[in-house]
Amino acid sequence: MENSTLKPMDSEQLREYGHQMVDFIADYYKTIESFPVRSQVKPGYLRELLPDSAPKHPESLQDVLNDVRQKIIPGVTHWQSPDYFAYYPSNSSTAGFLGEMLSAGFNIVGFSWVTSPAATELEVIVLDWLAKMLKLPNEFLSSGQGGGVIQGTASEAILVVLLAARDKVLRKVGRNSLEKLVVYASDQTHAALQKACQIAGIYPENFRVLKADSNTNYALIPDKLQEAIMNDFSSGLIPFFLCATVGTTSSAAVDPLSELGKIAKANDMWFHVDAAYAGSACICPEYRHHIDGIEEATSFGMNAHKWFLTNFDCSVLWDQNALIQSLSTNPEYLKNKASQENNVVDFKDWQIPLGRRFRSLKLWMVLRLYGLENLQSYIRNHIKLAEQFKELVCSDHRFEVVAPRTFSLVCFRLIPREGDQDNGYNLNYNLLDAVNSSGKIFISHTVLSGKFVLRFAVGAPLTEESHVKAAWKVLQDQATILLTDQ
Amino acid sequence: MENSTLKPMDSEQLREYGHQMVDFIADYYKTIESFPVRSQVKPGYLRELLPDSAPKHPESLQDVLNDVRQKIIPGVTHWQSPDYFAYYPSNSSTAGFLGEMLSAGFNIVGFSWVTSPAATELEVIVLDWLAKMLKLPNEFLSSGQGGGVIQGTASEAILVVLLAARDKVLRKVGRNSLEKLVVYASDQTHAALQKACQIAGIYPENFRVLKADSNTNYALIPDKLQEAIMNDFSSGLIPFFLCATVGTTSSAAVDPLSELGKIAKANDMWFHVDAAYAGSACICPEYRHHIDGIEEATSFGMNAHKWFLTNFDCSVLWDQNALIQSLSTNPEYLKNKASQENNVVDFKDWQIPLGRRFRSLKLWMVLRLYGLENLQSYIRNHIKLAEQFKELVCSDHRFEVVAPRTFSLVCFRLIPREGDQDNGYNLNYNLLDAVNSSGKIFISHTVLSGKFVLRFAVGAPLTEESHVKAAWKVLQDQATILLTDQ
Repeated sequence: MENSTLKPMDSEQLREYGHQMVDFIADYYKTIESFPVRSQVKPGYLRELLPDSAPKHPESLQDVLNDVRQKIIPGVTHWQSPDYFAYYPSNSSTAGFLGEMLSAGFNIVGFSWVTSPAATELEVIVLDWLAKMLKLPNEFLSSGQGGGVIQGTASEAILVVLLAARDKVLRKVGRNSLEKLVVYASDQTHAALQKACQIAGIYPENFRVLKADSNTNYALIPDKLQEAIMNDFSSGLIPFFLCATVGTTSSAAVDPLSELGKIAKANDMWFHVDAAYAGSACICPEYRHHIDGIEEATSFGMNAHKWFLTNFDCSVLWDQNALIQSLSTNPEYLKNKASQENNVVDFKDWQIPLGRRFRSLKLWMVLRLYGLENLQSYIRNHIKLAEQFKELVCSDHRFEVVAPRTFSLVCFRLIPREGDQDNGYNLNYNLLDAVNSSGKIFISHTVLSGKFVLRFAVGAPLTEESHVKAAWKVLQDQATILLTDQ
Repeated sequence: MENSTLKPMDSEQLREYGHQMVDFIADYYKTIESFPVRSQVKPGYLRELLPDSAPKHPESLQDVLNDVRQKIIPGVTHWQSPDYFAYYPSNSSTAGFLGEMLSAGFNIVGFSWVTSPAATELEVIVLDWLAKMLKLPNEFLSSGQGGGVIQGTASEAILVVLLAARDKVLRKVGRNSLEKLVVYASDQTHAALQKACQIAGIYPENFRVLKADSNTNYALIPDKLQEAIMNDFSSGLIPFFLCATVGTTSSAAVDPLSELGKIAKANDMWFHVDAAYAGSACICPEYRHHIDGIEEATSFGMNAHKWFLTNFDCSVLWDQNALIQSLSTNPEYLKNKASQENNVVDFKDWQIPLGRRFRSLKLWMVLRLYGLENLQSYIRNHIKLAEQFKELVCSDHRFEVVAPRTFSLVCFRLIPREGDQDNGYNLNYNLLDAVNSSGKIFISHTVLSGKFVLRFAVGAPLTEESHVKAAWKVLQDQATILLTDQ
């Protein structure tokens, strides 16, 4: 009896429950503006609302959905809210969502070609499409030596290229030279690089963090790089990896790829370009120049899950070299004719994990259901809204813009009074806390040249001009309260 | 004009298209038995069917779904087919699917608690539930020093614990002792460990692969481990990491945790237990003994996405120590009050990537919509079916069972004729190729003690007794053809 009761994949139950879930999610989007953008719960809130152990007997979908409504949603920070301006966006879209559904429906594990040829081949094809939209050099296409691969996140993309670079140089100079390997990047580079260095065993004292400041709008200075490399060579160290960023996390700064790439090439270093956020903008001809020089890069990454309507996670990495020399395994139980005959790609050898989802489906659906021109308009609209926000900031003498608005991010702050002890740190920290605690908008912060700076990143799919204007009013009103209280 | 056309997240379009996709997927499951289980396409098939570049203008969902039907599905290997018996299962279920939908709907990025407190807190709670179902020691609960965390795959779980172990010992003995660190495991351990060693920079010659054979049913022999450790100590090396497996990839062998754990403890080594596949069975009291000794482990992992109805990916890792000393980063732009006050978990510091999906939703839905008793029956039913298959094999004198059936995997082969030059390699390779090329079933293989062995892993959610019987008939019929042709 008990052996026959559970039918966990009954097509008609899937249909019935699936329809209920679609309505639940559509209703969520319909009412998304009614929730506090940043969750306002206190740490530990959920423990008090849920039982201590799993149920013995099945519960109904209705009960679960009620709990989602009453217990989970209050603890959700609504990244898809049109009033979300924190960090960088993490786009959801109907097309991306449908792709996630289909991928979860097939639920294949595409580690080798044979485990679902369509998963591997669609990924290769769609990444060629995207490479062409970005006008990447031919070396990054699958017809060249390398090709594209979908990683989970930019952190993983940076890690796999760092490992490939590490192993390439160690094969030449010997394993025990690990302590001599030097990595270069600006102090604006994402913390993922530091973490990757830690994982790869790069000595912390050999991670050269080059200072970038407002003189170059927080871009890495080629002369500084050149100097550091020369110093390291003369100390007997081995410079081997340079990471540049197009659209840094703090201020969307753009490192000068051409000049940096030439230095890397002259010194036989791996040159990785991380365009996690801003890469998407480069499908517009007027922004493509930000990746001029990309032909000097060894590898290039962008996150389609940030500002490109593809649901998280979908981080795209192209490289001119194969990663497989560092990441391959070939155990007996995974051998198969197609792989042995060497005429297929096995993506397990291009990434850290063995298993992988069918993520190309969602990117394919985004590209097909929206098309290039719509995607370009989408990007342009956000950049236009960011420019409008910047103008609003400029029009209020209490505020200042702290870094150039290059894409859809505005860095700004309340100007501290003369003689302010902490250069406006508390003032702006309090403004940040006040607006985020209001639940009306969610923004984030950074520190630039010692200044505590507010970050306003436009990029949620539902954000329109009215939301940007309303956000500015929230900021102005809270500023007025704070300045009056001072 | 162009700026206002695209509404990529319109709730009513999401609703309409979402319903269409639910029907598409439900229909897929309804007809899943009509497809060849292992895709029969040739390498490069999809390139000929799709255009060379992304469309400029939007296409219709109907066109995309037609392409999925006509171009993608032929290239899918149907892991959810009831006739799928290859590798180990990758379960999809209605509950797991709904969890994926909801996670894609919220599309949050839960790197820090504040980015969606519910995502972090539900994960902590649900992994406590699962730990209790498995009767794990209290040290693995969130009330202890460690707790559980969802990783993408067992490969990532093994990598993060290896890194934590590496950095812990290097903090004691100094970074330049990396070359002395030694890792131990049996030759039946998953290739993920070798890859993790490569990534972590463990010297290949310091990866002790201890031979296991049929005398112990392919389990690691404690005496061999003890001996290897002593040898390494006397050579001035530093034994620091032991990986045991409960349910190996090739034959579902179980390493003796208690004895191994005592050796690891006596030598101050990190002891990781990988129960990626078989861990799920340990929710049944009669199988729990396979992880007796788990209280000696430093960390323990199982894949809920394999045999536990939770759609890929969902690999659960518990540890008694925090991983955060190896994996933490704390850049300014991610700082926030809750994290600074140190009273919340930030899962970004327990994993390789920064970003993470809301994966606990699907595990929560599986546990609630099915309940403990149903989940136990589900496991028991597969084990019963595997036992039935084993009996069928035993009843045909042409075949032999090659390793004990401990869970739901049967390792078997056609017995080679006396004097067979390659000990039945070609005979069984050809049988494998014949049944998989028939499209009727999909099985995989391994090599045990030099024998080419067929693996029949029961575990797909739709598999019933009739499918197992039909699969056996396919194998018998193909065997008859092969043996007649010889």
